[in-house]
Amino acid sequence: MKNVAYIEEPVSWQNSFRFFIPITIRFSETDMFGHMNNVSPFIYFEQARIELLKEAGVLLDDGDNSGVPVVGDLQCDFHKQLYFDDKVRIYVKAQNIGTTSIDIHYMAVNESEEVCLTGRGRLVFINVSTGKPVPLSSNVKQKLKML
Amino acid sequence: MKNVAYIEEPVSWQNSFRFFIPITIRFSETDMFGHMNNVSPFIYFEQARIELLKEAGVLLDDGDNSGVPVVGDLQCDFHKQLYFDDKVRIYVKAQNIGTTSIDIHYMAVNESEEVCLTGRGRLVFINVSTGKPVPLSSNVKQKLKML
Amino acid sequence: MKNVAYIEEPVSWQNSFRFFIPITIRFSETDMFGHMNNVSPFIYFEQARIELLKEAGVLLDDGDNSGVPVVGDLQCDFHKQLYFDDKVRIYVKAQNIGTTSIDIHYMAVNESEEVCLTGRGRLVFINVSTGKPVPLSSNVKQKLKML
Amino acid sequence: MKNVAYIEEPVSWQNSFRFFIPITIRFSETDMFGHMNNVSPFIYFEQARIELLKEAGVLLDDGDNSGVPVVGDLQCDFHKQLYFDDKVRIYVKAQNIGTTSIDIHYMAVNESEEVCLTGRGRLVFINVSTGKPVPLSSNVKQKLKML
Repeated sequence: MKNVAYIEEPVSWQNSFRFFIPITIRFSETDMFGHMNNVSPFIYFEQARIELLKEAGVLLDDGDNSGVPVVGDLQCDFHKQLYFDDKVRIYVKAQNIGTTSIDIHYMAVNESEEVCLTGRGRLVFINVSTGKPVPLSSNVKQKLKML
Repeated sequence: MKNVAYIEEPVSWQNSFRFFIPITIRFSETDMFGHMNNVSPFIYFEQARIELLKEAGVLLDDGDNSGVPVVGDLQCDFHKQLYFDDKVRIYVKAQNIGTTSIDIHYMAVNESEEVCLTGRGRLVFINVSTGKPVPLSSNVKQKLKML
Repeated sequence: MKNVAYIEEPVSWQNSFRFFIPITIRFSETDMFGHMNNVSPFIYFEQARIELLKEAGVLLDDGDNSGVPVVGDLQCDFHKQLYFDDKVRIYVKAQNIGTTSIDIHYMAVNESEEVCLTGRGRLVFINVSTGKPVPLSSNVKQKLKML
Repeated sequence: MKNVAYIEEPVSWQNSFRFFIPITIRFSETDMFGHMNNVSPFIYFEQARIELLKEAGVLLDDGDNSGVPVVGDLQCDFHKQLYFDDKVRIYVKAQNIGTTSIDIHYMAVNESEEVCLTGRGRLVFINVSTGKPVPLSSNVKQKLKML
């Protein structure tokens, strides 16, 4: 795995993930070279992130004051090519938990236990009406730390 | 062009289109055989349909009682393969205009003036609050006939 | 369920399906009304179709003379709205098996056992080099009938 | 515009772009909050990148030894929300041109001349047969510097 700035120490970083979703590379997600499309990791990351947030009790439209998650930035490093029908586990965790935002890290591992993709991105919680950041509850923070 | 049930007479059907949007087949829309993905026509049809509706003054969220367009069915016939970077005109028209729904027809023509895709689909106008069909205004009907 | 031309008798038609894949509506597959995008059924149908073909031993790139599946037409009827995170079973079967093509039928059923989508489409098997249709082996035909 | 690590000085960085493609946010690219999907910028960046490479004479499948472009990493910062039907110019340039790779920068500007997205990513040129990096020709390098 090549070096990336957001991973301080690869082995401990990889071992710190617990939560994942299984993904199979769809036919519609391959391009004319047979590779997984470069856009697809961000679809998988999003899906993994949503499952993590649901697990942590951050509902998407719960009508209370918990704020809607908005993407601040996103990045992905491509370490190994992925192909049609590859089975991949998309790991996700809240690497840093701030007052109104979290830094989320991602890792895609194939069936040979190779790290194929790594990534990260910041998520800010916004009140839809006011457009202003909303603090995360201590309950949600606690759950995110456990996942 | 092979026969399809929704086209009575091909030549007059083709000539009856006026409104179109230009589309270029994107790299992310090709699959591992280099062909345009089978899903892509429905993205193009949607885009063409929305431009037609805008042109006819059917706004998507105008706050009045004009109803939101909901897809009842969709179909597409693939007459000629399309490839990455092909330039295509997506023609669209309201073939039949009912009280609360319209039957929309589609045709994709490449730069060699070949018909590559044909299609159709019914659109029903629904009141979001009640879930019930909403009649089209005579003004909108009139505009749709002209396009 | 509204009537559609390709379904002769709804109850026996529904009961004739055996093979399915599970799908969860992804966040990226919803539109600004919260509904599943109209394009998504065709992504699910494709995925279900590929799994059916794999199960029947129709490989996608097996190097022999078995032909590559090419879509002739596709259609989908929308019976009930689907939303983010809905769990759906996408049923698929080879309704009619011809010499060089098959007519594939589709049905999406939600967790309340409601039929939300139905569809069909013709698949033709083509030799990539010659561009000509290739007959299906009796072995593949036999397997398709069983699924 | 918030600070991002890959932009040393915002004003001169913005002014250094020349090449762009026009994009309209498609309906299918919005999510249930009405926002542009977080995945869409990477589709637009890819399309802009391909147009830049074509303009520079880097063909995708030209049969010679020029190498196929493979994505090493990708990142995007979201500065301002984008919505359905927004018209955006996607600027793209080769920020750094190495022996076998280039660092590409991206900027999306809306009709009010606001920077909505910025991004970057490394592209490596690979020989499909050997899997090894291929040096860029001086001709291509020269053209990339001009665009």
